[in-house]
Amino acid sequence: MSADHPGVAAGIDAARSRSEHVLTGWLNRQNGSCAALDDALRYSVLGTGKRLRPVLVYLAGRALGAGDDALDAPAAAIEMIHAYSLVHDDLPAMDDDDLRRGRPTVHRAFDEPLAILAGDALQTLAFEALASRPHPRLAALVTTLAQAAGRDGMAAGQAIDLGAVGAPMDLAALQMMHQHKTGALIRAAVRLGALVAVEESDPRIAALDRYAAAMGLAFQIHDDVLDVTGDTRTLGKTSGADARRDKPTYPALLGVAQARDRALDLLEEALEALQPLGEAGLSLAALARFMIDRDH
Amino acid sequence: MSADHPGVAAGIDAARSRSEHVLTGWLNRQNGSCAALDDALRYSVLGTGKRLRPVLVYLAGRALGAGDDALDAPAAAIEMIHAYSLVHDDLPAMDDDDLRRGRPTVHRAFDEPLAILAGDALQTLAFEALASRPHPRLAALVTTLAQAAGRDGMAAGQAIDLGAVGAPMDLAALQMMHQHKTGALIRAAVRLGALVAVEESDPRIAALDRYAAAMGLAFQIHDDVLDVTGDTRTLGKTSGADARRDKPTYPALLGVAQARDRALDLLEEALEALQPLGEAGLSLAALARFMIDRDH
Repeated sequence: MSADHPGVAAGIDAARSRSEHVLTGWLNRQNGSCAALDDALRYSVLGTGKRLRPVLVYLAGRALGAGDDALDAPAAAIEMIHAYSLVHDDLPAMDDDDLRRGRPTVHRAFDEPLAILAGDALQTLAFEALASRPHPRLAALVTTLAQAAGRDGMAAGQAIDLGAVGAPMDLAALQMMHQHKTGALIRAAVRLGALVAVEESDPRIAALDRYAAAMGLAFQIHDDVLDVTGDTRTLGKTSGADARRDKPTYPALLGVAQARDRALDLLEEALEALQPLGEAGLSLAALARFMIDRDH
Repeated sequence: MSADHPGVAAGIDAARSRSEHVLTGWLNRQNGSCAALDDALRYSVLGTGKRLRPVLVYLAGRALGAGDDALDAPAAAIEMIHAYSLVHDDLPAMDDDDLRRGRPTVHRAFDEPLAILAGDALQTLAFEALASRPHPRLAALVTTLAQAAGRDGMAAGQAIDLGAVGAPMDLAALQMMHQHKTGALIRAAVRLGALVAVEESDPRIAALDRYAAAMGLAFQIHDDVLDVTGDTRTLGKTSGADARRDKPTYPALLGVAQARDRALDLLEEALEALQPLGEAGLSLAALARFMIDRDH
């Protein structure tokens, strides 16, 4: 990770470790109601994943003065929503994937009914986690997470994506799909962190939202590019899978070089949006650079 | 409906109409992000269903002095959770049902991916609805709904049920399964209504919980009995389906007559639990009688 300022990289790593620890606390328990379901939940969340969304919660919250203790619940919640969406996206009726992050997908490691139920229970657990700590803006936190995950956010993006396989999609439609499918949750991560710290009317929330919107789209374009240029071992999932499925992608519409350029333009846009935060925005800037430079 | 007290039946009917109206407000909208998803959501919720859970929210809340305005959000939320669970339970990988409440199931009327996503988005919408109105006990409301729906509630019950098909299950195991699969959400409905009105420490909440636990189990046993004795037209779903799937049921374990007796004993238990509420409990008593006497 490139970080120009001492302590920035360490802060990001600490946020990642912390989110791992908090998630483990929620998932790694004894004596639940159904051991098979608990196993599938644990497998769905623990031991893999970049934890981008919880890290964004911590960095955005810290940037506006929140303490990590108050950020644990929304950080865990948004990663549970993300993890549930991967479990359901991988199902035979959806993307029918056998491999995720280098391991068998949940319906492969367990079975299809348990994968459906684990996804369902993970979504529920996200809202339980979010409400587990009192907060004066809890209603806004729940609304932010729900709107990003639901019929006008991630779920809509997935429905648009499934409806689009094999059909032509132009750049505007592709962008709209991604803004729902992945962008909404990334923006929600930043907004949740910010809302823990300050009132909804604070102008820094709007600046952070511009950062998150640009960064989220850059991240998605970069992901599309990696699907073309990466190999299966590095990616931890089958490379070239999008093209074989006739899924619309940025490289398919723009070519690889122009797609890369577009990602870098969006990265610049994200970094510019952070300017009003001054030094407080350094970690978020480093994270954005890291996400767009990564090769997996 | 038999109701000994004038106004009781009308109050129950009004609660049902009100919940229908509130759900319609959430589901029947224009210009969402994905028309197909919105259609599937609408189809999953509107136009069918007894609305037992939202009616319980209104009746429990009213019994402790809450106004209907404050009960709309939890009433809509719990019915959305119930509706999502039916959509996912009916999936080919789960119960593989073609018919629900006399209509094609969601994956039949639309397709399997959209049914998965509609269930997912409905669960999200439940929490969005719940948080749509400020409430001093919002954290308790969210926690109540999430714990009833998730890995120690409804989702666990469904996982236990799926794991039990074809395997022997004794009466204690069957009861435990139902307490999770359907009982948890019925208790949550009553608790949500009560929590809108009074603090968690109010002793009437414990009385209402005893009512809900007994009533929920009686309702389930009655449902099992109807599956044996009812016909497909009256039930709106395929009769005898449980037995054909080797699903454990109360009539299979106890015989039809003894299962009926058990349901009536539990009904008495539910009615007794309401005694501390006096006249305020009349509607809940009438509802319990109605649920156990119904033939569909």
